[in-house]
Amino acid sequence: MNSTALLTDHYELTMLEGALRSGAAHRRSVFEVFARRLPDGRRYGVAAGTGRLLDALEDFRFDTAICDFLHESGIVDEVTRDWLAGYRFTGDVHGYAEGECYFPGSPLLIVESTFAEAVLLETLVLSVLNHDSAIASAASRMTSAAMGRPCLEMGSRRTHEEAAVAAARASYLAGFAASSNLEARRRYGVPTTGTSAHAFVLLHDSERDAFSVQVQTLGRDTTLLVDTYDVAEAVKVAVDVAGPDLGAVRLDSGDLLWMAHRVRKQLDELGAKHTKIVVTSDLDEFQIAALAAAPVDSYGVGTSLVTGSGAPTAGLVYKLVARGASVEPGATMVPVAKKSSEKATRGGRKYAWRRIGSDGVAQEEVIGTGSAPEALKSEGRDLLMQYVAKGEVIARPTLAEIRERHEASRAELPPWSTQLSRGEPAIPTVYPS
Amino acid sequence: MNSTALLTDHYELTMLEGALRSGAAHRRSVFEVFARRLPDGRRYGVAAGTGRLLDALEDFRFDTAICDFLHESGIVDEVTRDWLAGYRFTGDVHGYAEGECYFPGSPLLIVESTFAEAVLLETLVLSVLNHDSAIASAASRMTSAAMGRPCLEMGSRRTHEEAAVAAARASYLAGFAASSNLEARRRYGVPTTGTSAHAFVLLHDSERDAFSVQVQTLGRDTTLLVDTYDVAEAVKVAVDVAGPDLGAVRLDSGDLLWMAHRVRKQLDELGAKHTKIVVTSDLDEFQIAALAAAPVDSYGVGTSLVTGSGAPTAGLVYKLVARGASVEPGATMVPVAKKSSEKATRGGRKYAWRRIGSDGVAQEEVIGTGSAPEALKSEGRDLLMQYVAKGEVIARPTLAEIRERHEASRAELPPWSTQLSRGEPAIPTVYPS
Repeated sequence: MNSTALLTDHYELTMLEGALRSGAAHRRSVFEVFARRLPDGRRYGVAAGTGRLLDALEDFRFDTAICDFLHESGIVDEVTRDWLAGYRFTGDVHGYAEGECYFPGSPLLIVESTFAEAVLLETLVLSVLNHDSAIASAASRMTSAAMGRPCLEMGSRRTHEEAAVAAARASYLAGFAASSNLEARRRYGVPTTGTSAHAFVLLHDSERDAFSVQVQTLGRDTTLLVDTYDVAEAVKVAVDVAGPDLGAVRLDSGDLLWMAHRVRKQLDELGAKHTKIVVTSDLDEFQIAALAAAPVDSYGVGTSLVTGSGAPTAGLVYKLVARGASVEPGATMVPVAKKSSEKATRGGRKYAWRRIGSDGVAQEEVIGTGSAPEALKSEGRDLLMQYVAKGEVIARPTLAEIRERHEASRAELPPWSTQLSRGEPAIPTVYPS
Repeated sequence: MNSTALLTDHYELTMLEGALRSGAAHRRSVFEVFARRLPDGRRYGVAAGTGRLLDALEDFRFDTAICDFLHESGIVDEVTRDWLAGYRFTGDVHGYAEGECYFPGSPLLIVESTFAEAVLLETLVLSVLNHDSAIASAASRMTSAAMGRPCLEMGSRRTHEEAAVAAARASYLAGFAASSNLEARRRYGVPTTGTSAHAFVLLHDSERDAFSVQVQTLGRDTTLLVDTYDVAEAVKVAVDVAGPDLGAVRLDSGDLLWMAHRVRKQLDELGAKHTKIVVTSDLDEFQIAALAAAPVDSYGVGTSLVTGSGAPTAGLVYKLVARGASVEPGATMVPVAKKSSEKATRGGRKYAWRRIGSDGVAQEEVIGTGSAPEALKSEGRDLLMQYVAKGEVIARPTLAEIRERHEASRAELPPWSTQLSRGEPAIPTVYPS
């Protein structure tokens, strides 16, 4: 087991120590994950990472080596060390389905346990959800802009090596067709794809040699990279080598709009009418949209995807919203909230429903405390599902189910939700008084 | 051992399979890591991640489970699978010292081996160096803007959980004083710091209760967070509870410039003249610079740091620049380069020297092929050091040495290098003909 317990901020441990001393550590507590706002004029966010978080939660244990490290470094005292040695999360976790679209204030995750058990999870919860939701949110805009053409994730090299694996998963759940990342295939079953780079052409004595061996190795259905030297010449050689049944050619530089038209014309003239064109050069959702009318068959997206297309983190926070008035079992739960300045929060354990019109289109994100009004139940759907009960993971949707959830959730939003221009959230968040 | 071998793009494996078939896999090859440009008007980049890469390289092995996965998934054929089972990097790696400043075209890493051995490393090399260099480059601007005041890294929650550990290391080498990330402390010895969050105040029945228990637990020298409710009231309670020897107060919201002046005045009036002020709310290098004249003692930086302050990836590429004319030992090395469009590269195995004036100030990044001109050797310093010889790691600078290298390298740049405004690289890259 690789423990995830130290993927944590120092202050979670000092708060624990203080709370153990005051006794307040054992008060029932409700922590909530939400975004104060969507990044940069986005219309919606996509909840992602929950499945990874459940895995990480099961590995959140303080073994002897970790306990000794924390104590010997002077980070925690003996009492805290001994408490950590027995740590096991015994609370409940509810949250949005992974793949669900979300809006400002949506309670993406609700962690209920003692303060001590729940506060320690803050950093890990946020790291996972902030990263994966940022990638999935960007990916969803790209698959939407691609209007059915396959999008391929190939950004591993432009992000941290482990973030790359998570990014492949997050983009797949938001509609990407495949990834280049092999670990994502092994770990999560994400389909992978890839043929060759410029180095393969440069390695050989000629482009013809390189294309020939690639076709021999991977078959005529492969994708040949045609922009190492001269594109027109390479396309000619490619069809000459592979025949008109060549699977695809890939363009990785230059003016892709102009080039795609030129290459399509050339391929057609060479009789390779079914040979596809893959484009892959610093694409983002705007470039994809700009190529909508071009004869392009699929999009390979790298840098922009794995960096969240301008919003590399989802800006989610993890806030204490309620806690017991005392440590007694059954003590009254007191809503709590930071009061000062622009970072004020709303106290209380939330419900969250999406109001859906009779036309099937989402209208409002309804968030409140207590029980959801009965009227709402006939006009929408409950957005919270239970993931963990008394410390046990009880729900773990498959990646296929998560993909379906995202597709359905996005399809339910108003038609203006997928426009790329900056603007307001697709639906308003309302707080019934 | 956790193998790093699958943190790799699918096409590295298909290229390997093709090259094994053509026989070109065994040609000597030189791959080079460089940036075509610096991001977004930056004046310099900071090389980072090399130490982490050396660790990952030692774990780059294809064990039976991985070989079977690759073969059974149809990614590689039997010949390739069997070749992978015996994989061990046997080549040489040279590169910039970690912490060194770099410029467009600087050959940050040079990998020399057979094509087969070296091509497989592309994705991993770039993931590690792109991420860590992006963070270190942003961090360096922040520590420079802070003009000696300590900067604290606290961005773990805003990036992937493993990227967070690497970000703590990368920011530390670029001058940050400490991090919040405990795993970075355990794994790399990065100092950590942290006291409490708003949740700790909200958990208790009053701010006074929370402050009291924190002071009891962590001592008077602790940092109390004073913006949960009303800052002026909290500062009063803080000094009342801890006495005038209170270590510091932390401000995490509001207009920090105005607030810092107000809180400083209040602390002084309360006799807490040595109590420090830590500020931590969405800071970046520009905010830090704007607070230069404010009575602030240290800066906690999160989101902006771990996302590279607008440049979340360094944009480094890994390109084949030379390869043997044949597989014969001693075959002539042929410089190779992509020719088409804006992504053209320079072929050949590079040297890299920084020309230093008689005043000790860096003047030019001199990059060429073959041997460096003798004249250069008296006017500058060689930027390439050898990390790996015949597959063995032979140099592994400590994090302390890397910090010193960065400080010295930055200090050697012209004085305009640390301005924050967008502009040209601090020194030009020149290619002697």
